Amino acid sequence: MAEAPLAERVDQKRLWQRLAELARFGATADGGVNRQALSDEEIAARAELIRWGKSFGLESYTDALANLFLRLPGSDPTQPPMLIGSHIDSQPTGGRFDGVYGVIAALEVAECLRESGRVPQRSVEVVAWMNEEGSRFAPGMMGSAGYAGARTISDILSARDAEGVSVETAVARVLAADANVSRRDLGRPVFAYIEPHIEQGPILEREDADIGIVTGIQGKRTFRVVVEGEENHAGTSPRSVRRDALVAAVAIIDGLQKAIWDEADIVRLTIGRVMVAPNAPSVVPARVEFSIDLRHPDAKTLRELGDRIAPIVSANAGACRAQATELLHDVPLEFTDRIRDVLRNAAKDAGLRSIDIASGAGHDARHLSAICPTGMIFIPCRGGISHHPSESIDPRHAAAGARVLAGAVQALL
Amino acid sequence: MAEAPLAERVDQKRLWQRLAELARFGATADGGVNRQALSDEEIAARAELIRWGKSFGLESYTDALANLFLRLPGSDPTQPPMLIGSHIDSQPTGGRFDGVYGVIAALEVAECLRESGRVPQRSVEVVAWMNEEGSRFAPGMMGSAGYAGARTISDILSARDAEGVSVETAVARVLAADANVSRRDLGRPVFAYIEPHIEQGPILEREDADIGIVTGIQGKRTFRVVVEGEENHAGTSPRSVRRDALVAAVAIIDGLQKAIWDEADIVRLTIGRVMVAPNAPSVVPARVEFSIDLRHPDAKTLRELGDRIAPIVSANAGACRAQATELLHDVPLEFTDRIRDVLRNAAKDAGLRSIDIASGAGHDARHLSAICPTGMIFIPCRGGISHHPSESIDPRHAAAGARVLAGAVQALL
Repeated sequence: MAEAPLAERVDQKRLWQRLAELARFGATADGGVNRQALSDEEIAARAELIRWGKSFGLESYTDALANLFLRLPGSDPTQPPMLIGSHIDSQPTGGRFDGVYGVIAALEVAECLRESGRVPQRSVEVVAWMNEEGSRFAPGMMGSAGYAGARTISDILSARDAEGVSVETAVARVLAADANVSRRDLGRPVFAYIEPHIEQGPILEREDADIGIVTGIQGKRTFRVVVEGEENHAGTSPRSVRRDALVAAVAIIDGLQKAIWDEADIVRLTIGRVMVAPNAPSVVPARVEFSIDLRHPDAKTLRELGDRIAPIVSANAGACRAQATELLHDVPLEFTDRIRDVLRNAAKDAGLRSIDIASGAGHDARHLSAICPTGMIFIPCRGGISHHPSESIDPRHAAAGARVLAGAVQALL
Repeated sequence: MAEAPLAERVDQKRLWQRLAELARFGATADGGVNRQALSDEEIAARAELIRWGKSFGLESYTDALANLFLRLPGSDPTQPPMLIGSHIDSQPTGGRFDGVYGVIAALEVAECLRESGRVPQRSVEVVAWMNEEGSRFAPGMMGSAGYAGARTISDILSARDAEGVSVETAVARVLAADANVSRRDLGRPVFAYIEPHIEQGPILEREDADIGIVTGIQGKRTFRVVVEGEENHAGTSPRSVRRDALVAAVAIIDGLQKAIWDEADIVRLTIGRVMVAPNAPSVVPARVEFSIDLRHPDAKTLRELGDRIAPIVSANAGACRAQATELLHDVPLEFTDRIRDVLRNAAKDAGLRSIDIASGAGHDARHLSAICPTGMIFIPCRGGISHHPSESIDPRHAAAGARVLAGAVQALL
């Protein structure tokens, strides 16, 4: 009855070595990675993953969206598999861990399971979802969205990159390179999904925690604000007659900050894009357009804060006209308590300090949670930095996340 | 002794007619004018001016910078002439009055003087300076700068437009078209210079004044501010760890407004150009660069206000690094009391309501003031709008400005 903990089999050195080896595919001179979705670099990294899996008995599968599955077959092939993994594509100026860490940690757990000699009834599959980042083909999370039925395949395949190449063409190239990989249908039933990932934020580091048990993925509302004033001569027009769109935009942004930021520092408010016209040093700006990205883990709070935006924009427009248009409203997502409990216990059993944490970024787990019990494991990343060549993690945290995943897989199987 | 007032001879209809006719050269579909410096349109307008001058006895001269002089010869050719005029080049999206009004008003005064039958000792010359606007060839006020010795001829001739055409080449084309115009040296002595111009601001209109007696040209200091923060993920990075360059820029601009704007509304503070990087909706901005254009008619105030900028930039940078670099410091210019008194009296004699006003924009009179007693006459323009097709003036104001110029010329000769 007392089965040996699978987590004890996790080999930190092997895990770390594979992370280093995968970072060669798309490696950039500054130590980062440019391995965009469906690129040659991703095709090569994918072949390496398949080779590693094959070396200890994993079968490889793919589907019409080039999601990759490495299967450790269970004794009962009729039972839906346990899925573990993440993605291996990166941002153009990405780091060595975002996404790929979850896939390599899952591969480590599959190898531990194989080495344990135990053959569970249910298969365990390591998954690498197609195009999570959305930098080459927008929007991201295409593979998981298609798998979970959140988007149609034809819609996904019709997206194009900046060079005009369609996802359909790029997927076909990947599938041609995968000639020895078995094809199967999209959207097969899944028993459960667990995704390990770097935090991409500073909270675990600040709280000195080894592991984040992800409570859910925060909601997001985005807006475009347009402020329209009047072009004028910087030297001749007095302040009292100006309709300066930049002055109004500054007042609006200041008003948004005052009304929306919270003491507890849970709200995420970002003005990331600003366009000024005519944008000349000696001309009073006639028009300013800017973006608002607002995120919060609580649905009610997100709704309330987002609903404050339009009145604040109007109230601070001064002599200009200003209007906010909502572009997106993704409600917050909560992962099921059952998986969170399993992960919390696995961390405890491995002697690791875990805390609950909300995910600030979107992940493939969002789509999977619609079709099966889903959870995520976060590990700290240095300085909270991601999407940057300087992205960095501690090898011990890498192993810790794999141990929690191993414990959870063992508990769920 | 009691000479008839020259101002009474001003013919509003003739003046207005000439303004309408000159607006045909470079006329745009939206009612504006695109007659850039040294263009075919300017060459054609120049020929029309020469023809008008010739019709009542003005001699035409030009120089190595293609400044144009239409001379009403005095009885003593050894005496330096009285210069009156402005420029006839426009912004690419310019109006029908900026610059050209001063030249046409001067031509009207010369014609009145001719019609009066009086031959003064001193010659009177109507001048159209080369490239005041600086839109095709930067910077502007080239002809007057070269005339007054503020810039060398070779420096001016080497400037190029966006197509790579040099001022030297463009000037040569104009001079070739002026085959019947006499050439003379640059920088000949000038007795006095008076430049009529539209206000390009709303003050005369607001004060219900017919005439602005220009006290001087306000000073200008320009700065480039660079704010450097850190790129971060809009969803994952809490406010407390962000180094958001846009948040810092907004705080800096807000701080500048609070510290620099004055109750009296004399200060001109403009943030006209803002560049954000990477300028993506879901990325915390790493860098913001913006321009500051600060103007004031008082040298001491301009110095003090400008000197506040660097400390305000530093004090409001928050977690970012921010630095202001000064690009230009043009001290304010005061026109001589003597010319201002003459202009004020001329307005009074003509029964016009005049007020003192500082020029917010730069003008050729800046350079002339270094070599001779100089003054400027402003007339109202509708809504204070200039550098725009909708630029508009009242024909009565056009005539009023010419009457003040006529009175001043009569008083000075």
